Amino acid sequence: MDRALIRSFGRRVRLGMVGGGSDSIIGGTHLLALRADGYCELVAGAMSVQPEIALSSAQSQMIDRERAYTDWRVMLEREAERSDRIDAVVIATPPQLHFPIAKAFLECGIDVICEKPMTRDLAEAQELVHLVRDNNRIFCLTHCYSGFPMTRHARALIKQGAIGRVRMIDVIFAVGDPGTSVDPENPEDRHWRFRATSIGKASILGEVNSHAYHMAGFVTELKGQRVSAHLATFAKNREVFDNLYATVEFSDGAAGRFWSSYVAAGNDQGFSFVIIGETGQLRWSEEDPEYLWFKPIGGPAIRHSRGYDSNDPSATRHDRFRAGYAEGYGLAFANLYVDFAQAVMARQLGRPYREYLAILPSVEDGLSGMKFIEAATLSHEQGGRWVDCAPPN
Amino acid sequence: MDRALIRSFGRRVRLGMVGGGSDSIIGGTHLLALRADGYCELVAGAMSVQPEIALSSAQSQMIDRERAYTDWRVMLEREAERSDRIDAVVIATPPQLHFPIAKAFLECGIDVICEKPMTRDLAEAQELVHLVRDNNRIFCLTHCYSGFPMTRHARALIKQGAIGRVRMIDVIFAVGDPGTSVDPENPEDRHWRFRATSIGKASILGEVNSHAYHMAGFVTELKGQRVSAHLATFAKNREVFDNLYATVEFSDGAAGRFWSSYVAAGNDQGFSFVIIGETGQLRWSEEDPEYLWFKPIGGPAIRHSRGYDSNDPSATRHDRFRAGYAEGYGLAFANLYVDFAQAVMARQLGRPYREYLAILPSVEDGLSGMKFIEAATLSHEQGGRWVDCAPPN
Amino acid sequence: MDRALIRSFGRRVRLGMVGGGSDSIIGGTHLLALRADGYCELVAGAMSVQPEIALSSAQSQMIDRERAYTDWRVMLEREAERSDRIDAVVIATPPQLHFPIAKAFLECGIDVICEKPMTRDLAEAQELVHLVRDNNRIFCLTHCYSGFPMTRHARALIKQGAIGRVRMIDVIFAVGDPGTSVDPENPEDRHWRFRATSIGKASILGEVNSHAYHMAGFVTELKGQRVSAHLATFAKNREVFDNLYATVEFSDGAAGRFWSSYVAAGNDQGFSFVIIGETGQLRWSEEDPEYLWFKPIGGPAIRHSRGYDSNDPSATRHDRFRAGYAEGYGLAFANLYVDFAQAVMARQLGRPYREYLAILPSVEDGLSGMKFIEAATLSHEQGGRWVDCAPPN
Amino acid sequence: MDRALIRSFGRRVRLGMVGGGSDSIIGGTHLLALRADGYCELVAGAMSVQPEIALSSAQSQMIDRERAYTDWRVMLEREAERSDRIDAVVIATPPQLHFPIAKAFLECGIDVICEKPMTRDLAEAQELVHLVRDNNRIFCLTHCYSGFPMTRHARALIKQGAIGRVRMIDVIFAVGDPGTSVDPENPEDRHWRFRATSIGKASILGEVNSHAYHMAGFVTELKGQRVSAHLATFAKNREVFDNLYATVEFSDGAAGRFWSSYVAAGNDQGFSFVIIGETGQLRWSEEDPEYLWFKPIGGPAIRHSRGYDSNDPSATRHDRFRAGYAEGYGLAFANLYVDFAQAVMARQLGRPYREYLAILPSVEDGLSGMKFIEAATLSHEQGGRWVDCAPPN
Repeated sequence: MDRALIRSFGRRVRLGMVGGGSDSIIGGTHLLALRADGYCELVAGAMSVQPEIALSSAQSQMIDRERAYTDWRVMLEREAERSDRIDAVVIATPPQLHFPIAKAFLECGIDVICEKPMTRDLAEAQELVHLVRDNNRIFCLTHCYSGFPMTRHARALIKQGAIGRVRMIDVIFAVGDPGTSVDPENPEDRHWRFRATSIGKASILGEVNSHAYHMAGFVTELKGQRVSAHLATFAKNREVFDNLYATVEFSDGAAGRFWSSYVAAGNDQGFSFVIIGETGQLRWSEEDPEYLWFKPIGGPAIRHSRGYDSNDPSATRHDRFRAGYAEGYGLAFANLYVDFAQAVMARQLGRPYREYLAILPSVEDGLSGMKFIEAATLSHEQGGRWVDCAPPN
Repeated sequence: MDRALIRSFGRRVRLGMVGGGSDSIIGGTHLLALRADGYCELVAGAMSVQPEIALSSAQSQMIDRERAYTDWRVMLEREAERSDRIDAVVIATPPQLHFPIAKAFLECGIDVICEKPMTRDLAEAQELVHLVRDNNRIFCLTHCYSGFPMTRHARALIKQGAIGRVRMIDVIFAVGDPGTSVDPENPEDRHWRFRATSIGKASILGEVNSHAYHMAGFVTELKGQRVSAHLATFAKNREVFDNLYATVEFSDGAAGRFWSSYVAAGNDQGFSFVIIGETGQLRWSEEDPEYLWFKPIGGPAIRHSRGYDSNDPSATRHDRFRAGYAEGYGLAFANLYVDFAQAVMARQLGRPYREYLAILPSVEDGLSGMKFIEAATLSHEQGGRWVDCAPPN
Repeated sequence: MDRALIRSFGRRVRLGMVGGGSDSIIGGTHLLALRADGYCELVAGAMSVQPEIALSSAQSQMIDRERAYTDWRVMLEREAERSDRIDAVVIATPPQLHFPIAKAFLECGIDVICEKPMTRDLAEAQELVHLVRDNNRIFCLTHCYSGFPMTRHARALIKQGAIGRVRMIDVIFAVGDPGTSVDPENPEDRHWRFRATSIGKASILGEVNSHAYHMAGFVTELKGQRVSAHLATFAKNREVFDNLYATVEFSDGAAGRFWSSYVAAGNDQGFSFVIIGETGQLRWSEEDPEYLWFKPIGGPAIRHSRGYDSNDPSATRHDRFRAGYAEGYGLAFANLYVDFAQAVMARQLGRPYREYLAILPSVEDGLSGMKFIEAATLSHEQGGRWVDCAPPN
Repeated sequence: MDRALIRSFGRRVRLGMVGGGSDSIIGGTHLLALRADGYCELVAGAMSVQPEIALSSAQSQMIDRERAYTDWRVMLEREAERSDRIDAVVIATPPQLHFPIAKAFLECGIDVICEKPMTRDLAEAQELVHLVRDNNRIFCLTHCYSGFPMTRHARALIKQGAIGRVRMIDVIFAVGDPGTSVDPENPEDRHWRFRATSIGKASILGEVNSHAYHMAGFVTELKGQRVSAHLATFAKNREVFDNLYATVEFSDGAAGRFWSSYVAAGNDQGFSFVIIGETGQLRWSEEDPEYLWFKPIGGPAIRHSRGYDSNDPSATRHDRFRAGYAEGYGLAFANLYVDFAQAVMARQLGRPYREYLAILPSVEDGLSGMKFIEAATLSHEQGGRWVDCAPPN
C-alpha cells in the first residue's frame, strides 16, 4: 500500500461516528476497519442513542471527552465550529436515521460514510442523490463485500470478457445464526431488525438482500429490470419476513436469482455468488474470500488468489500481505475506508480524487437498491407478479 | 455386500436392454452399473433403432448373436418363448418410447428398469401406474442420484430429525458442458434432446429437472404443492428451453427452489442440494459425492463420509470399499441395479422382496414427476403464476 | 472406451483367481475391477486356502462348479488341459505365496496379474524378472493408484515439463483405521498383516509404502538412490512396525520423503502426493481422486479434472463418464484390468500390444520396490544411515 | 472483545519500533496488528538502519517528528527521559540485532516484543532468559501462528484429550514464492536472508522452521528430544540452505517431522500441521485459518470454525466477528498485541497480568527454539545423526 499520499496529507482523516457503539452489531467492524491501515482516526462520536453507552463507547475508543457526544445534532454543531473538525461522518445507526443525519452533515460540508440500506424509502434516496450532488460531497455506502479484492477481481475479469456475455447471476445471502431463534413473545423485547413498526415488514430486503443486489450489479455492471419476489416468515413470533426468493431479469438479456434469509439454519455468514457467462463462470463465497474460482467451459478450473501480482490493480492496490496470508473480512471492509480516505485526502490536497471512488458503492447505487426494495415488496404483495425495478434516472 | 442371496439364486438376473447402444449417452452407464457387482448379466438387446448400431452394440457386450435384436417388439416376442428368457428389461430409449415398451414388457410378465422422464405425459404416467400394479411387476425408475449412499444417509438423517422440521429445499441441476453450443442451423442435425418436435419445448423439465424434483422428495419425503416457474432459452438456434428457475411450495410449510440448466457454462455435472431445517442443514453435491455435510445450528460442521459403519444401513448396505476409497457415480448407479436384482431374486425365490424396493424410485415417483412437469410448464406459460403440482392420488 | 478390439477378439479375457475370496481384504476390489468394463470374466478360482471359503467364494462369483478349486496347483493343472483355459491368473494371496504361484503359471504360459508387494524378498524379485522375460509373458503388478486418470495426467504433465525439473517428492500413505487397534493378546489371533513371523517385522514397507514408492517413480520417472529410514511401533501388542518415516535422494538431484503408517488415527485412506519442480507443483490425493492440482509459481492454481478432453490421452483413454461424474477407486483399479486385457487380446490377435503395457506397473517396478524395502530395512537397523536403494540392473 | 481494561487504563499502550520500516518485510504486519484493535499506538521509531527510510517510515506512521529516530540507541536514551515514554519496544530488525536491542531496553525497564529467531545463537538466548527474569519484564516472541484462534483451540482440544495421547506431529512450513529465484550473481546484491555471512548458512532453521518448531510444542505441549536433520540447497547462486527435512523424537514417545523450505514452488504461504493421537487427529493450515479439522477415529470429520461460542475461551476471547467472517492473518497477529497490551495495562494498574501471557510465545520458548536450531545444524553436519535437542533447563 503506497503511503506517499498520507505523508503529503500529514495527518489522518478525522472521523466522527453516529451510532456504532457497544450496543451496535456493525460498529466494531467499522472501528477496526477505520483503524487498521492508519489512514483514519476516530476523533468524535455520538455512538448510541443511549447516553451512557454513547459515552462509554467513546471512552473505549479513546475519544477526547469533549468530543464524546450523546446527540448527533450537538456533535454536528460543535464539530462545525472546530478548526480540527471532522472530515467525514460515519453513519452506523438503524436505517430510518440515515437520511436526516446524512442530510445534515452533507449540508454542513462534511463527507459521509453510510451504512445500508441507504434510506427508509425511495423518495429519501432520490433526495439524497441530489443532496450529495448539490453539496458536492464524497459519499460511500458501505456495501462492504465490494471491498474484497476477489470481488473486485471478478468485476475486472467480467469486464475483460473472461466469461463472455453474462447470462446468469445467482447471489445468495442466507444467514443461519438466528435460524432457531424464536422472537420474544413481547414485541417490545424484539431487536429493531425484527420489528415491523420500526423498520417495516420487508426489512430483509434492506438489511440483507441489498448487499446481494449491489454485488450483482457491482461485478456484472448490469441493471435489474424486472423482479418476481416471494417473501415468507418462518420463525415463531416473528413479525417481519425472514426469507426472500426473487427471480430477476437484468439488462442485456441476463437472468438471475436472489435468496436472502435469516433462517438458513446451519449457515454461518452465507454470502456467495455464481456468475455465468457464455464461455465460463465465476464463483466466490464470503466464507472463503481469498479465492475466486474461474471456470472456463471445457477446461480446468482456475482458482485465483488474493495477493498475486497478476490480479487486476483494483484487487491488488490494497494488498497488505502476500498470497496465502488471509486478509479476511475486516481488511476487506478497511479497503472501503482506504479508498474513501484517499479520496478525501487527495481532494483536500487539490489533486484528482475521483479515481479513488470509481468502484466504491455510491449514492446512486443506494438509489438503485431502494428501487429494487420497493419493486420486490410490490411484487410479493401481488403474488410474485413481474414488477419493474430498473433504477430511476 | 452380502452374497448369500445370489448363491441361493444360483445365477445372475438376466436382463435385456432396449436402447442404450453406442449411439446413446446413458447406455454405457447402465451397462457398467449392471455388470459391476455381478448380480446381473445382459443377455439380450435391441440397443438402437439403427439396426447396425443395435447389432454392433450387442456384439460389444458379448450378447449371443441370436439374442441381438434390431426391434424391441421382436425381442419381446422371442424372449417370451425362451426358457432362459430375460427377467427384466432395461428401457434406455428416448422418453417418448418408454411407455409403449414398458407396457408391452409388463404385460408379458417382465420386470422393468426405466429411464427418466418416465413417460411423455401425465396421462401415460397414470396408465403406467396401473399397468405396474395390475401386472404386479417390479418397476424401477432410474433416478440414479438416489443410489448414492450419502443421499440415502441424508434421507435417513432427516427422517431421524437431525435438522428438525424441514423449512427450505434448494436443488440445482445446472449442466455446463453444452453451454457454448450453438445448435446446428439445420434443425434436422440437432440432437433429439434439443428438438421441440420430438420431445417438446419444455424438455429440460423431464431430461434434467426431474432428477432434482425426485431428489427433493426423496430426501425430505415432502411433496410439491404449488410451483411458479420461468423457462428461458439462451443458446443460439435452440428450439427448446435451456434454463429453468422454479419456486415451489412443499407440504408441511416448506419452501424451495429449483434451477435446472443446459447453459451453466463452466459447471461440469452441476447437481447439488441444500436442505435446511429448523435446527440445521444438509448439503450434498454430486461432484463430491462421498461426503454429506451436516451443519447443526451454532456448532461445528460435520462431514459424513461414505463407508463409515455409523452411517444409516440404507447408506452402508452396498458399501464395497472403506471410507476414503471413492465409489463414485458408476457404483451409485449400480446400487439401483443391486436393489432391483435382489428384489427380483428374492421374489422368484418366494421370499419377502418389498424391502429391497423401499427407497428405489417407483412408478408413483414417476407419476409425481410428470405432474410437476405439467404444472411447471403451465405456470411458465401463464407468466409464473402459482400452479398446483401436488401428485394425483 | 473404444470397443473395436473386444469385438475383434469375440470374447472376454478369461481369468482365474488365486486368493481373493470372501476372507480377503482386496479380493472384492479385483472382482469389481475385472467385471466393470466387460473385458474380463472370472471363470476359475482357488480363492482361499480354506476349502469351504474357496468354494463359496467361487459360487458367489458364478464360477462353474468344476472350475471352483481348493488348491491353486490343481487349478493350474486342470486349466492347462482345457481348450477354454484361462488366459491369465490373478494372484491375490498373502505376499509370501506370490512368487511360487507366479512362477508356476508363467512357466505354463499363462499371463499374470499380481498383488503387491511382488515377492517376499529381493532375490525372488530378481528371479521373477527373469521368469517373465524368459517365458515372454504379460505381467502386471497391481499398484492400483497408477490406474487413476489423474495420476496418469500428473505423469504426463511432468514429462511435458509443466513443473520444470523435479526437486522434491513427498508421498504419504498414512492409514488411519486400525489406529486404536490393540492387537490381540494371543499372537495366533493377529491378522497375517501384523504377524512378524508370517510377513516380517518391516511388513509396512511392502504392504503400504510400496504403493507410495511406486507412485514416486511413476509420476516423476526418477529412481531412488539412497534412503534414510526410521521405523517405529505404536500400537499395543503389535509385533511389527506400524510407522515409517523415510528421507530419500532420487536421481537427477531430487529429494523426497515418505510417510507410511497404520496408526494415522483419523485418516481414512490417507494416500497423497506433492511433487515440486523448479517452476511449480502437482498435488493429488486418493481421497479426492478426480482432481489434480497444478500450481505454477506466482500464478493462480489450476485444478485439472478427470474427464476433460484436454487431458493427456493416458488419462482419458478409459474415461467412462464426463467430468463431474466421479469414477472413483473401483474404476481406477479397473483401468489396470482394461489395459491388461487389451494387451492380452491384442497379443493373441497378433497385433502390437506393448503400448497397452507402457505405464502398467511391471515386474521391473516390482524389483525396484523390493530393493527399496531391503534398503530401508537396513537403514533403520543402522540408525537411519543412508543406504543405497538404486534398483539393480 | 471486552474493553473495560482499556477504559480503566485510559490510554493506549505506547510502542516504539526498531526496524519494521518500508524496507522491511514484516514491519507492515506489525503496524497493522498493533493498530487494529486500538490497544496500542506507535509513538516512536527507529524504523530502519537507513536514516532516510527510518524518517519517511516514521512519517508514514504519523509519528511525531521528534520521536522519529535514526538510531535505536538514541531512541532508547531520549525515550527514557520522557514522561510519556514508550511502554514497550517492538524489535523487527534482522536477527543478529535482536539481542543487543532487547538487552538495552529490558535493562531500561521497557517491555519487549521481539521477532523470531530470538537471538543469533543459544548462548545469547540463555542470557536473554536471565535478562527478562532479572529485569522482571514482559517479553513476547512473535511466533504469530500461535495467535490464530484455531491453533489455540487445537491446543485446548489436545489438552482436553480429544485425540488421546499424541503420537505423531507433522509440521510443514514450505514457502513457494522464491522458488524459481536465482539469487543474484553478485553476493552483495543478495537479500540478508540469503547471505551466509550475515545470518549463517542454516538460516532457514531460524527464519522459517522456528515457527514450525514452536507450533509443535505450542499445540502439543511436548518437547523435542532428538533430531535427525538434512539440509539442502536447490536455488542457483544460493549460499544458504533452502530446504530442511527433519525427523524428531518428542517427549512422551511421540515422533514427528518438519519440512521447511524456500523452494516449494507453487506453494503460497505453506504452513500447516497434522497432529495425530491415539484416537484421532487435528489438522490446520494457515492458508485456511478459520477452520480446524478434528477427525476422530472411525467417525465423521468435524470442522471447527473460528467464531463459535463453543470454542475454547483461548480461541474466542479476541473474536471480533461471528463465524463465517474471516479474521485472517493480520488479526491473528493482532491477537498477540492484544494479549501483550492487556498484560502491560493490567500490570501497570497493579492487577494480575500473568494470565494474559499464559500462551504467548515466551523467552523460554525462544530458548527451546535456539537449542533446536543448534542441534539440527549439528545433525546435518554429521550426516543426519540423532542429536539431542531437549531444551536446556
